[in-house]
Amino acid sequence: MTPGKLVLVPNTLDLGTDCEVDLREVLPQAVIDRAARLGHWVCENAKTTRALLKRVDRLTPLALPLQQIQITELPRPPKGGAAVRGAAGTPDLKPLLAPALAGHDIGLLSEAGLPAVADPGAALVQAAHAMGLTVEPLAGPSSLLLALAASGLNGQSFAFVGYLPVEASTRAARIRELDTLSRRLGQSQIAIETPYRNDALLGALIEHLQPSTRLSIASGLTLPNCRCETRSVQQWRAQPGAALGGRLPAVFSWLAG
Amino acid sequence: MTPGKLVLVPNTLDLGTDCEVDLREVLPQAVIDRAARLGHWVCENAKTTRALLKRVDRLTPLALPLQQIQITELPRPPKGGAAVRGAAGTPDLKPLLAPALAGHDIGLLSEAGLPAVADPGAALVQAAHAMGLTVEPLAGPSSLLLALAASGLNGQSFAFVGYLPVEASTRAARIRELDTLSRRLGQSQIAIETPYRNDALLGALIEHLQPSTRLSIASGLTLPNCRCETRSVQQWRAQPGAALGGRLPAVFSWLAG
Repeated sequence: MTPGKLVLVPNTLDLGTDCEVDLREVLPQAVIDRAARLGHWVCENAKTTRALLKRVDRLTPLALPLQQIQITELPRPPKGGAAVRGAAGTPDLKPLLAPALAGHDIGLLSEAGLPAVADPGAALVQAAHAMGLTVEPLAGPSSLLLALAASGLNGQSFAFVGYLPVEASTRAARIRELDTLSRRLGQSQIAIETPYRNDALLGALIEHLQPSTRLSIASGLTLPNCRCETRSVQQWRAQPGAALGGRLPAVFSWLAG
Repeated sequence: MTPGKLVLVPNTLDLGTDCEVDLREVLPQAVIDRAARLGHWVCENAKTTRALLKRVDRLTPLALPLQQIQITELPRPPKGGAAVRGAAGTPDLKPLLAPALAGHDIGLLSEAGLPAVADPGAALVQAAHAMGLTVEPLAGPSSLLLALAASGLNGQSFAFVGYLPVEASTRAARIRELDTLSRRLGQSQIAIETPYRNDALLGALIEHLQPSTRLSIASGLTLPNCRCETRSVQQWRAQPGAALGGRLPAVFSWLAG
């Protein structure tokens, strides 16, 4: 028997917002059709996975009734992302992939965008490779790269640095470190934040980056109220009302000038 | 009059391969529909842009005859990507955006995937921001992030480093430098190569990375012959026939163990 594949299924970017986009705005039709056929899923959150499958079902009827689709949540990773780096103490995820050994394709879904990027799914992909399973990524949106594309910053050298520290003085030091790194390498830096802290991060970036650094914000990507703006830090400082509000996911990127 | 937007239109990942994927495999229906309505384009290559518009037309009829659609090529950037970083001597791209001032949306298209990522389009996005135009990125595939997702490497901290040097000893030094950086930062490193040099780069990576570093190759992403494999360098060394061949675009990523 041919083993099943681990299929990386992209999600929308509207979770937690007031807006539910039409899936056809952000997912290829073939991805919607493929999702409708999968009977086994591993995800971050079973409830939001079921919600997505209901949206899929309205466009392409699910092959199985929703109640018969097996949905398993990933174990929550320890703080600091150690699970992703395969540190000791990582839970054994191979049992989650058992259906593939019985010939079933398994969908991996994250809460937003591509699974295994900026989320705990990478450990499952690692386990799939260790078991010799085929891993198949399906085309879909990544908020990080949509933000980078829309920034006009250097798209030929960039780094995603995840979340910055929350404590103000540690965060300021990290921002200055990343600004120096950006200048030295000519490398765009990309960071994310929990929406309710967006404005705190934006304020800290405007305060601590060099005036000539170009800073880009992208919020509500793929949503009707999408906003992508890039200005020098000097210009941001001169402009009142830079606030993003705390509702929409945002991506921050900058390139030292 | 409301100015037009600069619309970042994703492309397929099949350019230069033997395979022409159905657009519905990789692009959302709304993106296909939007592309069909745009009468002004800026691109890397007018011929491949017309070829894509013909594929769009078979699914959603173009709003204008192809002959009436204005397609302008970006100036070729100088070697080294200086144009992207806005160095002195960068050509003034604002004239390319003149149709937006007359109220027309302009599509920006690259040869593969998201425009302005790993291609010369970022300079046009920068010019759009400088003119105060709205920049709207549309959801679509990025080979870099599909490869990262499928690698199982750290998706919470990663860097795209572009092309590595071609000369063997310089390339070896760069590979060792990036391996050390990956170990120090826990950061996945992502690189690309011109397909005919894929196997030379793969061989150099297998030779010069540390044995415990995990190395991932992703070739033919979104194509029927897609291949995504991640192994330790030690395992790659023990396995004959790691060759990719010189036909398919590939993405290389690694994470020091």
